[in-house]
Amino acid sequence: MISPYNDEYYMKQALLEAHKALEKDEIPVGAVIVANQQIIARTHNLTECLNDTTAHAEMQAITSASGHIGGKYLGGCTLYVTLEPCVMCGGALYWSQIDRIVFGAKDEKRGAGRYAGIYHPKTKIEGGLLEEECGELIRTFFKSKR
Amino acid sequence: MISPYNDEYYMKQALLEAHKALEKDEIPVGAVIVANQQIIARTHNLTECLNDTTAHAEMQAITSASGHIGGKYLGGCTLYVTLEPCVMCGGALYWSQIDRIVFGAKDEKRGAGRYAGIYHPKTKIEGGLLEEECGELIRTFFKSKR
Repeated sequence: MISPYNDEYYMKQALLEAHKALEKDEIPVGAVIVANQQIIARTHNLTECLNDTTAHAEMQAITSASGHIGGKYLGGCTLYVTLEPCVMCGGALYWSQIDRIVFGAKDEKRGAGRYAGIYHPKTKIEGGLLEEECGELIRTFFKSKR
Repeated sequence: MISPYNDEYYMKQALLEAHKALEKDEIPVGAVIVANQQIIARTHNLTECLNDTTAHAEMQAITSASGHIGGKYLGGCTLYVTLEPCVMCGGALYWSQIDRIVFGAKDEKRGAGRYAGIYHPKTKIEGGLLEEECGELIRTFFKSKR
């Protein structure tokens, strides 16, 4: 039997979250965290709504997933996020010791991948999944702001 | 008139916060954020109590100060923190565009200062204030854990 629950399925869930951010006039970034094929956290960027620069989708996802697990380490979990994590989120993911990160669009300006050693050596990083769809959402948002 | 409200005064307030963390068996790091000589946020590390790797003193201080101000940018504010900010906190402080960061002990392992470009170019960074007292608190904590 082919499982419908593959990387693309989870990234589409993260995209649904990004659309929720867009509806709130937030920079449209969404994330989910998955453990044992189950989504244990669904979040989207809320920096404007919460007046808080730390309220990126990934930060909220880490807090939410830790609450679900009842522990602060996210070994065995995968984060799916529509935009490459920034330095702050990369640093947070380091502390969480998350197993795997799959992101959509690359962040050329502030992506954690620009620096060696931001991520935990245990963490596997994969970029570019549904890149076009994830990136187009953000590009369209910024174009509408000009 | 000599103002009692100088950098050392505020760092001592951050140290009081670090002691509160210690009482909760948390890694003893404390922070305050100051605007117009007024402390607008007082926080300490709560990663164990909250089961959340993102609950560093600085992250909570940013959220708390933004709440106080009612805006997400911390221009005109100074953060006093007993330990050098890590990569996550340095990345968060970048987004906040905080005016100035004064830290106590250096973090040789995970300090944001190890990487060029983590902090915002607008932000002034000063390290080493009450370094001995700030560092000794953390060293004693870790010795007691061995």
